Amino acid sequence: MAVPVLDSDQLLAHLQGHRRLTRRTIALFPADQFTTFAVGGMRPFGAIARELLAMAGPFVKAFATDDWDQWDEDRTPIAQDVALAKWDENTALIDQHWPGLVAKGFTREITIFGQWPGTVRQHLFYVIDNEIHHRAQGFTYLRALGIEPPPFWER
Amino acid sequence: MAVPVLDSDQLLAHLQGHRRLTRRTIALFPADQFTTFAVGGMRPFGAIARELLAMAGPFVKAFATDDWDQWDEDRTPIAQDVALAKWDENTALIDQHWPGLVAKGFTREITIFGQWPGTVRQHLFYVIDNEIHHRAQGFTYLRALGIEPPPFWER
Repeated sequence: MAVPVLDSDQLLAHLQGHRRLTRRTIALFPADQFTTFAVGGMRPFGAIARELLAMAGPFVKAFATDDWDQWDEDRTPIAQDVALAKWDENTALIDQHWPGLVAKGFTREITIFGQWPGTVRQHLFYVIDNEIHHRAQGFTYLRALGIEPPPFWER
Repeated sequence: MAVPVLDSDQLLAHLQGHRRLTRRTIALFPADQFTTFAVGGMRPFGAIARELLAMAGPFVKAFATDDWDQWDEDRTPIAQDVALAKWDENTALIDQHWPGLVAKGFTREITIFGQWPGTVRQHLFYVIDNEIHHRAQGFTYLRALGIEPPPFWER
């Protein structure tokens, strides 16, 4: 029989913990390499950071408000100092809108932008998994640049 | 107030879904590159796969049985066909021991190998996060080899 494993406070801590590690990863890049360096024809980390900024914060807000109007689809690499400032704004946005999201529940089915179906829970795990995945790409870039990434287990 | 988000059936599906994606990633490497190719002085994916094989399956079994004697600390790159065969063994091992793990609960505190403290829940999320993280390193290797990785969202 299934038993409960994770509650909404623990999920918020999990999300924000991963986001703190991503912030440290962003901060470790030399500013010029943040928007230019890449491996294997992939995107620079400044483009990846822009994608991540368009997901966790805006999604949590939209799950709480059901307003999906604002969506940054631009994937032009963002400057490192701008990325860090927006990161902190999104951290506050997530904390602000989390109670509203929790109140509406995790089992609602939402098709995001008419393209991605799933429950709120599934979307949130996708946001976290996608951030872990792309941050690891950033770790690889840092190693290729001779820079030690932050410890993965520190949140 | 905190509300339940994820139950034990959903966590098992989440874990096995990620493991299916990692299996497809392993299978996409040319056999020789699996044990030799790397970027930025990091380990080849055959060494990473060996680490992943030492975690998800053995940890689930040990959480169910409290027997931590068997632990592969060897990180010599493993051959691709051996990795895939062991992967399938571990998939079955996880399904077999999951009910025993669930029966003992997710909130027990366990210090693994006297080094890593945490609850069973925290350890399991670490196992999944670590697998997503290192698999992404494999995605980067595949791209650098000119090979298209599997779609991240397919599990």
